[in-house]
Amino acid sequence: MQAPAAQPPSRKRRKIDPLTPPPPASEFPPYQPRDFFHFEVLHTSKKSGARVGRIHTPHGVVDTPGFVAVGTNAALKAVDGPWADAEGQQLMFANTYHLLLHPGADVVKAAGGLHAFMNRQRPLITDSGGFQVFSLAYGTVHEEVNSLKRGTGKSRHKMEHNLVSRVSEEGVTFRSYRDGAQMLLTPESSVLAQKKLGADIIIPLDELPPYHTEPAVLEASLARSHRWMARSLKTHLADVRQQAMYAVVHGGLSLELRQQSIDYLTSLPFDGYAVGGSLGKDRQDLFWLLERIMPRLHERMGGPKPVHVLGIADPASIPQLVAYGCDTFDSCYPTRVGRHGTMLTKDGPLRVVSGKYKTAFRPPVEGCSCHTCRTHSLAYLHHLVKAHEPVAATLLAIHNVHHMNAQMAELRQRIMADEV
Amino acid sequence: MQAPAAQPPSRKRRKIDPLTPPPPASEFPPYQPRDFFHFEVLHTSKKSGARVGRIHTPHGVVDTPGFVAVGTNAALKAVDGPWADAEGQQLMFANTYHLLLHPGADVVKAAGGLHAFMNRQRPLITDSGGFQVFSLAYGTVHEEVNSLKRGTGKSRHKMEHNLVSRVSEEGVTFRSYRDGAQMLLTPESSVLAQKKLGADIIIPLDELPPYHTEPAVLEASLARSHRWMARSLKTHLADVRQQAMYAVVHGGLSLELRQQSIDYLTSLPFDGYAVGGSLGKDRQDLFWLLERIMPRLHERMGGPKPVHVLGIADPASIPQLVAYGCDTFDSCYPTRVGRHGTMLTKDGPLRVVSGKYKTAFRPPVEGCSCHTCRTHSLAYLHHLVKAHEPVAATLLAIHNVHHMNAQMAELRQRIMADEV
Repeated sequence: MQAPAAQPPSRKRRKIDPLTPPPPASEFPPYQPRDFFHFEVLHTSKKSGARVGRIHTPHGVVDTPGFVAVGTNAALKAVDGPWADAEGQQLMFANTYHLLLHPGADVVKAAGGLHAFMNRQRPLITDSGGFQVFSLAYGTVHEEVNSLKRGTGKSRHKMEHNLVSRVSEEGVTFRSYRDGAQMLLTPESSVLAQKKLGADIIIPLDELPPYHTEPAVLEASLARSHRWMARSLKTHLADVRQQAMYAVVHGGLSLELRQQSIDYLTSLPFDGYAVGGSLGKDRQDLFWLLERIMPRLHERMGGPKPVHVLGIADPASIPQLVAYGCDTFDSCYPTRVGRHGTMLTKDGPLRVVSGKYKTAFRPPVEGCSCHTCRTHSLAYLHHLVKAHEPVAATLLAIHNVHHMNAQMAELRQRIMADEV
Repeated sequence: MQAPAAQPPSRKRRKIDPLTPPPPASEFPPYQPRDFFHFEVLHTSKKSGARVGRIHTPHGVVDTPGFVAVGTNAALKAVDGPWADAEGQQLMFANTYHLLLHPGADVVKAAGGLHAFMNRQRPLITDSGGFQVFSLAYGTVHEEVNSLKRGTGKSRHKMEHNLVSRVSEEGVTFRSYRDGAQMLLTPESSVLAQKKLGADIIIPLDELPPYHTEPAVLEASLARSHRWMARSLKTHLADVRQQAMYAVVHGGLSLELRQQSIDYLTSLPFDGYAVGGSLGKDRQDLFWLLERIMPRLHERMGGPKPVHVLGIADPASIPQLVAYGCDTFDSCYPTRVGRHGTMLTKDGPLRVVSGKYKTAFRPPVEGCSCHTCRTHSLAYLHHLVKAHEPVAATLLAIHNVHHMNAQMAELRQRIMADEV
């Protein structure tokens, strides 16, 4: 199985100087608002950069600030689509990498696209596949930091799963973790795969250097990501369909490179922007970085375009990121902690397994209107978790999805009232 | 943690001759139909012993022949209660043994009983706990037959989990698989625990001899089961509340002992009868036995009382057992095979994982109106199973619960038309 390529990959690899600049904006048409996709800002806080808006997509509206649930394999973990919808889920993420491995982009296309395949009537976003491929290569930041702490100097993940065969200007070759088959992911093949998937929002291929990267290497990586994103955008613009493309702002923790990335990417006709690459080792790094780069991103975008933060949606980070003018946030955190027995509440995580809830014959989270809290007591959920009943994961994840969406709705109200 | 006992267990064990007869019917009041529980036969087939009926319980009606879903820990595996209800589930089983271990009968009582604890508005049945305790001791028939085939002569289960400490006339002492705590289960303590759980139908404690049992041992076991069930019934009748009690007909594959069991148990004022004990090693044994004992059971019951078959509800067995006049059937089979990737259909099991369904963009089971078949394609379910998505277990189990209930409804129609 091989990801579809725009053209057969040339045997003769292109030699490119690492710092070769990406194509200039003059090679692209100017940005034109799409009739099928636009971002409407309803209110900007008088107190911060926070804003309330609406992303209009071919599959309906996404209220912002908004939580984006992650359905890696075109399904939330333990939660069926309609149940997430019932808890107010608007935009859902699916991962191109996983869908390429199974069932394959052609199968999804034959189904009539991802919406038809998973029977979802609401908006979808897919990524390029790059994040997963490079995570295989470099491990996550978390793993990297931990392995450095242990003094091994190398990610355990990388050592155990050397699945990335080769990164070249052409793209990245990797082996399927399912069957070991060689696959080539290029900017063109990623976009064409995402055309077959047909999500409302797609993302161009980028390179993800690890958290600890020498400045010169980071700079070269940024240049390559820009070249890749330019190629991705050209492929996309040749056949837009009803899809919007977000660029991914890179540059790690270098303000100079982030600025360079913002300046280049906002010169191209992208429909929105995602903040990606390494965002640091902790929340402090994240806030430090976003506080400094978001003003420039907003300034350079010109008109109102949505800003997505990739992979970060923990309740402790969102309000601050919203204040910097970020609009959407994806994370598998709410479903994952649900699987591990935690309910999210305004007062922090509720560890359902705790013995003190054995006789808590009351709604799990006071005032919550989710299916789980309407139906069951905390004592019953405690029992299900203790008894290792699989339905516990489902019930807790449903609550957590509801909680995230309810929190975002409340945040929108607070922005409307200039409280954030 | 110890199961509640009617009185403190006497230190001095009663010595009882193995064949001591159980108390005669004269020690019990005659059977009186309950105002809160009765069985109404709507139609008996002209072609067989099959009958269509309604069990009226304090929590609503159970149409018979009916499928009883098994929610061991007061929850179906991977399916929340309301979703099973939506698929027509009427009567649900919960296992006293598991609930004694967690959360404990007192916690359930404090919640207001099992219905309140699990927020179920429909009928519930609990067993005595004996089945699980003796399964720990002897293993299942399946394990026993397999271990005999392997020539070990002993159940692997039994060897690995020697959790039953002692069986005496008083009851059975076992260790909790959760924390190793000693627990004593007696006829009295089982009934009192089931009073705290508060299910609509409860079951007296019986001994479950293994499939391969010498005739003399089986006879002694039957006598003990009768003595235990008589004690259970006395405990129950001292405080009936709104609960019905079914006796469990024993005797293994001995027609003589089965007859003896039927004759004794039908002489006591039970509200219904369950067929339990060893029902043989395969379906052939099962049919052979039931064909021979069911006429006598019906004859001796006098008025119409429901007959339940314990632990058997596979689609291949039900129609035949219904023809013998059995009314309800419990099994964890539909949810279990769902977890393992199988959907039940009229044409037999559908192995969703099969590669031939990769592009089956059609409803999984033609004409099925369950949540899963209304919402998703077979190709999507195939993808979820292949991708090991936990929601697959839920979606397949939901279908299977629906299928069982739909099949029972169809069977009722066919009985009404004298086709069965």
